[in-house]
Amino acid sequence: MNLALEISNVVGIIAFAIAGSIKAVNKQMDLLGALVMGFSSSLAGGIVADLLLGMSPPSNLTYLPYPALAFSSSVAGFVFKKKISKISRPLLYADAIGLGAFAASGSSLAFSIRPEPLLVIMVGTITAVGGGVVRDILANEVPMIMEREFYASAALIGSTAYFLLRVLLGLGDPTASTVTFALTLTLRVSAIHLGWKLPRPKG
Amino acid sequence: MNLALEISNVVGIIAFAIAGSIKAVNKQMDLLGALVMGFSSSLAGGIVADLLLGMSPPSNLTYLPYPALAFSSSVAGFVFKKKISKISRPLLYADAIGLGAFAASGSSLAFSIRPEPLLVIMVGTITAVGGGVVRDILANEVPMIMEREFYASAALIGSTAYFLLRVLLGLGDPTASTVTFALTLTLRVSAIHLGWKLPRPKG
Amino acid sequence: MNLALEISNVVGIIAFAIAGSIKAVNKQMDLLGALVMGFSSSLAGGIVADLLLGMSPPSNLTYLPYPALAFSSSVAGFVFKKKISKISRPLLYADAIGLGAFAASGSSLAFSIRPEPLLVIMVGTITAVGGGVVRDILANEVPMIMEREFYASAALIGSTAYFLLRVLLGLGDPTASTVTFALTLTLRVSAIHLGWKLPRPKG
Repeated sequence: MNLALEISNVVGIIAFAIAGSIKAVNKQMDLLGALVMGFSSSLAGGIVADLLLGMSPPSNLTYLPYPALAFSSSVAGFVFKKKISKISRPLLYADAIGLGAFAASGSSLAFSIRPEPLLVIMVGTITAVGGGVVRDILANEVPMIMEREFYASAALIGSTAYFLLRVLLGLGDPTASTVTFALTLTLRVSAIHLGWKLPRPKG
Repeated sequence: MNLALEISNVVGIIAFAIAGSIKAVNKQMDLLGALVMGFSSSLAGGIVADLLLGMSPPSNLTYLPYPALAFSSSVAGFVFKKKISKISRPLLYADAIGLGAFAASGSSLAFSIRPEPLLVIMVGTITAVGGGVVRDILANEVPMIMEREFYASAALIGSTAYFLLRVLLGLGDPTASTVTFALTLTLRVSAIHLGWKLPRPKG
Repeated sequence: MNLALEISNVVGIIAFAIAGSIKAVNKQMDLLGALVMGFSSSLAGGIVADLLLGMSPPSNLTYLPYPALAFSSSVAGFVFKKKISKISRPLLYADAIGLGAFAASGSSLAFSIRPEPLLVIMVGTITAVGGGVVRDILANEVPMIMEREFYASAALIGSTAYFLLRVLLGLGDPTASTVTFALTLTLRVSAIHLGWKLPRPKG
């Protein structure tokens, strides 16, 4: 994995874990609830992706830096909830960086196991948004990705781009990953700024 | 797989995907929500079954015709919701056909991997009703199978029949699959017509 | 597995299945709902643990005594709900015994597959509390472990102890399992008696 992607992954884990932990605080959960929500938000997408690809035990449970980061970020979210809530705008961008990085890592991993189009697109997207879905199910809510804005769609388009760049243009993993990351991030940030929404049923 | 079962699988995927997509519309989800709900309804049962049997990546993410069908049916459900809602009765029968076909495919797959009674019965049933459970969890509802009528029970009895026919009567897969399909379908259609219900606790 | 742990596992499955089944009755589910809730409560933690460790099919779906016990306990919970509800105190202790036994079995299994700290701790804890989480998600509630008392924390500490005893003190599996069981049980029973709670956010 190239360095930019690695750094983005780290930014994403911090942002995802803090968001999960703050949602736990808002739901009046206790410290364990905040840890579970922080862990799920940042690591569950990758764990589900590993299971779908037949990689067990999942690397998020054996390679320690990411879980350690998720743990400390969740504790920070629990303790400093009020202070952190004041920087919600920066957090939104950090989350977008994580979305892009996770879509790129997930697509890349799936492609290396089996270069099938649907598998790459689904695993890329699930790596990026699966943690948020698990978090929302644990919080007993309809997953945010199914109701709000242009979020999972950015990861879906990014993961599709990864597959096309590898297969149609014959690009290598570093280039395709970087483009996936940049494209997902750009789409998501544009969606935030321009208020993009998907069509929705009328009355 | 024999042709009748293959056709029934196709009917089931269409019916399941449309039902998921329409539930998304009723919950005011956007287009992506409708796709996620349609996909989950029609494909998640088979994916969970594959994971339980150690088959990865799941065939629903690598063999493309089924996902393509789920995709187009979900879009159709989203776009033509009002028109489709008028044919709810035919959809109920299409759903019953899918229930039978999925129970037969799931039991058959599990038996081919390991002919253990509980495994065959559970995997057959989960293949048939797992998608609906995932759909209802995503919609933040108690899974319909646990509250309503004689639905999962039909798949459970059908899958049990598959195991018994193979082991006790020594029948081959084509016959056992066909009986499982027909039995599950007959039980479910009877339940719809006769209003069968399982016992429920009193006051 | 030593005999004490085996007996404790049996006690746990009975207690977990009855609790799941009674929750189904309280939610007005039908008999199938009670069976699904009882099964999930007592067996889903072990199934998820097996999937994370790459063991498929999961032993809870192939080794029959545990599922048979879960089945009969769930039926008993459904039929004798009123009588059983009168002995809620003994059930709480039986549940604590199961929590300890499951934490010990899960940690022990994970350690035998790959002696990584996080994997052992997570799999031990998930084996112990995962069934309850699945049960609560199916009942459309926020998982109890994230809001209430000192419950998952007991399993977490017990599973951590297992890893440390094996690696730091070089103890064998029988001793480490027994200590994990006893420690988790003691912590949980103390929590019940002394009303331990984890910190929670203020206003």
